Amino acid sequence: MTVIDTKTEDRYPTRTSYGLELIERTDPTVWSNGCHDGPIDPATLASHDTKGYSIYEGLLSPAEVQAYWQELERLTNDESLKADERVIVEKSSNQVRSVFEVHKISELIAELVSDPRVLDRARQILGSEVYVHQSRVNYMPGFKGKGFYWHSDFETWHAEDGMPAPRAVSASIALTDNYPFNGGLMVMPGSQRTFVPCQGETPEDHYKASLKEQEFGVPNEDDITKLVAEHGIDQFTGPAGSTLFFDSNIMHGSGNNITPFPRSNIFVVFNSVENTLVEPFAAPTARPTFIGARDFTPVTR
Amino acid sequence: MTVIDTKTEDRYPTRTSYGLELIERTDPTVWSNGCHDGPIDPATLASHDTKGYSIYEGLLSPAEVQAYWQELERLTNDESLKADERVIVEKSSNQVRSVFEVHKISELIAELVSDPRVLDRARQILGSEVYVHQSRVNYMPGFKGKGFYWHSDFETWHAEDGMPAPRAVSASIALTDNYPFNGGLMVMPGSQRTFVPCQGETPEDHYKASLKEQEFGVPNEDDITKLVAEHGIDQFTGPAGSTLFFDSNIMHGSGNNITPFPRSNIFVVFNSVENTLVEPFAAPTARPTFIGARDFTPVTR
Repeated sequence: MTVIDTKTEDRYPTRTSYGLELIERTDPTVWSNGCHDGPIDPATLASHDTKGYSIYEGLLSPAEVQAYWQELERLTNDESLKADERVIVEKSSNQVRSVFEVHKISELIAELVSDPRVLDRARQILGSEVYVHQSRVNYMPGFKGKGFYWHSDFETWHAEDGMPAPRAVSASIALTDNYPFNGGLMVMPGSQRTFVPCQGETPEDHYKASLKEQEFGVPNEDDITKLVAEHGIDQFTGPAGSTLFFDSNIMHGSGNNITPFPRSNIFVVFNSVENTLVEPFAAPTARPTFIGARDFTPVTR
Repeated sequence: MTVIDTKTEDRYPTRTSYGLELIERTDPTVWSNGCHDGPIDPATLASHDTKGYSIYEGLLSPAEVQAYWQELERLTNDESLKADERVIVEKSSNQVRSVFEVHKISELIAELVSDPRVLDRARQILGSEVYVHQSRVNYMPGFKGKGFYWHSDFETWHAEDGMPAPRAVSASIALTDNYPFNGGLMVMPGSQRTFVPCQGETPEDHYKASLKEQEFGVPNEDDITKLVAEHGIDQFTGPAGSTLFFDSNIMHGSGNNITPFPRSNIFVVFNSVENTLVEPFAAPTARPTFIGARDFTPVTR
């Protein structure tokens, strides 16, 4: 197969030097085929299919939230981790903001990833065995928390990691209360059905800059306006322990946070074992495996 | 009277080189004494007294919103106004963001200022005749709208304009829908009862920089944390035409706005004629009169 053949087959072209029209997604959102029953009731699963996300309040008990919070504190205060490339430290404050591949660093978080409350929901939505494409903990401080602009995760994972189809789902497990005003996630319900190609070719080693501020893989304002007009905006609010499952292609973003309330979460991306990575579709080289895993071993209990 | 005497009399000291404790406000929030009846019902007035703000949905009709929106468009597109010092233009885009003293520039807005729905509420809250301390229209675009950090307006008006007491009230008349997620105003209900002194002496001509980003008159994080712990945060949401009256000393701020929804409002500060300006309490010179008026003529029908 030549390079040209590969490009012809790409159903989700992006990062082109010219502009492209919006693309209607042909892949399902919920891939359940009856073989992977799970804890999600039919109505919630149908809503997830339509909206591209579902929220499970109290998925973690208060005691568990407390335990994971302490684990987060332990990880972000571990000086020996600060030199690790998987740990993102804010230069000005020397504070840890994110720890990637955290399920390989922390046993407690490894357990959470294979916990049936989390794992079985991912399997149920994706209709197959799943593996971890990416995991991380995030700590966004109060007062100075920066938001991130609108984007589809799948657009990046497809372009830069070589994920063929949007058969992946993310679990965002809140360790702090999410209010409407402390920079929580905003999603456009139903937007997962539209793939938004982004203009601009990906430069070498783009990931290093993109962990701070995304410059490529950013949808244009006209496309965002169209999607918001059609879908509106929902916010992920709820007490600590609430968990959001959201489609890899849903358009989402967040504002900044000037309140004193910090925001911390555990973020796990499950990909279907039937959707394992190939070469990047629109980047010179694949990103490091701590950002886009290439060990496709299914997660099991 | 010497300078030292004046400072002794200042019940709201701020902009000191050293830190100061929080000060409990001795002045009322609602100054009604029965002489100024008005359109605010007793329950709403009592709530305004407690919370420091009140919201009047539909104060403007949809047709009026439309008319004021067109007036805003006319003003922000008037090339002849762009050189006017009262017009704040964003350099990078050459777009008008604010027009100060707008009730002297626009007849339509002058009418609104003396409209009984607006004026009589201000008189009722302040318990006296009132004049306009400041007026402006604001246009915050979607996608790139910057927020502003927590502050008390009175702290600035006292320090830089010489307003003796917090006997002023602001009306924010929304010309666009306010959602929880497009950078609308956040207030701490009840915080108007506490004066938060700010550390740092005001430099000469501070107002020029402060219209863009405030560096002085910024409360410290510990004080904000205390106030939020005590009062919590409310957001001003509602359809276009909704009007917020809020106390001059209420702690407020706003996040940024990455949504496509712009935010525009008309902002009018009424001050009591019994609270007219003196020399600035903590600045070398008073700000220009288009920011802090020194014509104390009461507004009348």
